[in-house]
Amino acid sequence: MKTKIAVAKGDGIGPEIMAAVLRIFEAANVPLDYEYVEMGKSYFDAGHSTGMTAAAKETIERLGLLFKGPMETPKGKGVKSINVTARKVWNTYANQRDFRSLNGVDTVFSKAGIPINLTIVRENIEDTYGGIEHLLTNDVAVGRRIITRPGSAQVIRYAFEMARRKGYTKLACGHKANIMKLTDGLFLETFYEIAMEYPDIESSDIIVDDLCMKLVSRPEIFQAIVLTNLQGDIVSDLCAGLVGGLGFAPSANIGDNISIFEAVHGTAPDIAGRGIANPTALLLSGILMLRYLGFTTAAANIENSLLYTLEQGIHTGDFGDKAVASVNTETFADAVIANL
Amino acid sequence: MKTKIAVAKGDGIGPEIMAAVLRIFEAANVPLDYEYVEMGKSYFDAGHSTGMTAAAKETIERLGLLFKGPMETPKGKGVKSINVTARKVWNTYANQRDFRSLNGVDTVFSKAGIPINLTIVRENIEDTYGGIEHLLTNDVAVGRRIITRPGSAQVIRYAFEMARRKGYTKLACGHKANIMKLTDGLFLETFYEIAMEYPDIESSDIIVDDLCMKLVSRPEIFQAIVLTNLQGDIVSDLCAGLVGGLGFAPSANIGDNISIFEAVHGTAPDIAGRGIANPTALLLSGILMLRYLGFTTAAANIENSLLYTLEQGIHTGDFGDKAVASVNTETFADAVIANL
Ligand SMILES: CC(C)[C@H](C(=O)O)[C@@H](O)C(=O)O
Ligand SMILES: CC(C)[C@H](C(=O)O)[C@@H](O)C(=O)O
Repeated sequence: MKTKIAVAKGDGIGPEIMAAVLRIFEAANVPLDYEYVEMGKSYFDAGHSTGMTAAAKETIERLGLLFKGPMETPKGKGVKSINVTARKVWNTYANQRDFRSLNGVDTVFSKAGIPINLTIVRENIEDTYGGIEHLLTNDVAVGRRIITRPGSAQVIRYAFEMARRKGYTKLACGHKANIMKLTDGLFLETFYEIAMEYPDIESSDIIVDDLCMKLVSRPEIFQAIVLTNLQGDIVSDLCAGLVGGLGFAPSANIGDNISIFEAVHGTAPDIAGRGIANPTALLLSGILMLRYLGFTTAAANIENSLLYTLEQGIHTGDFGDKAVASVNTETFADAVIANL
Repeated sequence: MKTKIAVAKGDGIGPEIMAAVLRIFEAANVPLDYEYVEMGKSYFDAGHSTGMTAAAKETIERLGLLFKGPMETPKGKGVKSINVTARKVWNTYANQRDFRSLNGVDTVFSKAGIPINLTIVRENIEDTYGGIEHLLTNDVAVGRRIITRPGSAQVIRYAFEMARRKGYTKLACGHKANIMKLTDGLFLETFYEIAMEYPDIESSDIIVDDLCMKLVSRPEIFQAIVLTNLQGDIVSDLCAGLVGGLGFAPSANIGDNISIFEAVHGTAPDIAGRGIANPTALLLSGILMLRYLGFTTAAANIENSLLYTLEQGIHTGDFGDKAVASVNTETFADAVIANL
């Protein structure tokens, strides 16, 4: 029996990279069925304020799992990112991003011989992402930052469970509780409360600025880090930079009822439709999704094949490494399939 | 005639590194006179809530310039960092940190052959650093983030002036105005308003998460970046990591009436009093101070000597590079003096 999931192809290069990834899934005999949903910039433009049709929302809520391509944030004052809205609507409170060095993807760190292998778990709903702001006068803007104990607890618990599942021995909490004593203080307090339930995982905390300093000098000292939303956003992208950029980092938005697996890079309108986009981040997100669904053998099979393909120097044009001959999206997918 | 400045030796390793730096200044015939002020953790412990005596405050306000060693943040709920209080009390609204690769100081980036040379200007007073927070319930913490137009304008103007003075051709504004549309929106709007007065400096803006991704992969594309307080704090430490850590990065807190030049690393109580601490960050801050005072020849002389000393492999024990023989603080200072 196949598991059915919702698929939103995304905007720009979304449909091309989604097609490539699903073709790889098919070749690997992944037991999935897809229900395509109407979601993205064009649906926003057609009057759906959340960027999706009612039918799309119903389908996603029924199936509980959405695999999505990148979506363009509509322009305009007061308009919210479709990606961020989706995370919020379904309370996908934990954003997990796995960062690891990929052989064949050159970075400053690979050149220095420093392997990257760490996971960031970011709180995905609270903090300044509530968008509660006002202009007190024309010259004074006030924003509110809200951190709650249950909101912190659910993402921190997820991080500990994930650490355990991955066989990690430690989890760090990144924060700025020396300045934001009550808000980040509450997050940190909750972290240590929940840590007591996980004596097998060594828990520690680190101030976020110090964390960033260490991530760019000794990233190998970390296994997993849990943070509040905005700090987690910044640290996630920093870590993406360590492994080659957003094109090489998967992302999962985990909730109790609905989870979303997505590529977090842009929609690259400049190259959309040309069939040359890099499907790696979406494929990595797909692999994360397969593991989440329990299809561990298929996940490992595809992952090994992807890693080997990259190692062979088979790259799409955006790898930045101009010395290597580049292939288009479909040829890249063909190579991954051939290596399965 | 000599210029008189206030000097606070700092806590922990502060007195040792300050002595070394002032000895180098003397050998370089820097025309400065010092008035030592009572400021630091022990003065806080003795009942001075700001960490300084009334006499210290008076002296600093009279002289307008404070050269300070690191100071320990007193423990306890509601207690503020002495460093942060000092910045606030005197409205030192711009925090400037210059980051450059130092030959002889190995980092991931030096190993990859990527030279670092950039300046971060951070707003130093506003944002969540106001410490306006409350617990709405035991489970909900609310913090307020305040950004003002005049507060933004003064630091942004400083950044443009600094860029011009340094001969930079561009200045970027880092922000998260896609999420914090009003607060960071106000900062960004102010940036572009002031940019119009500096047509010789190319202005651009970049979302802070993307900025961090680029800083760890292509730092050479930036010359100077101006940011709000907390984002600037995070990005400053990230950049410190690029050049070897806080032990190798100078810091200036600039205000209209009072400016503070300080080492922003810790007080290293574990090695305090042993004469082995690294005076490089304080010396670099001192060099920045000499330039600020217009003593450009002395600044260049000391700087060249420091760079040459580091390049020779003369290192204190904290460089992390265990292969190189390490010297103590005084021997390091002697070497800098010999190279003058
Ligand atoms: C596009 C933006 C609103 C979003 C965020 O800040 O969460 C992005 O940076 C991300 O990390 O997915
Ligand atoms: C110690 C801490 C309060 C301080 C800050 O956040 O400003 C430090 O990180 C700095 O950058 O000087």
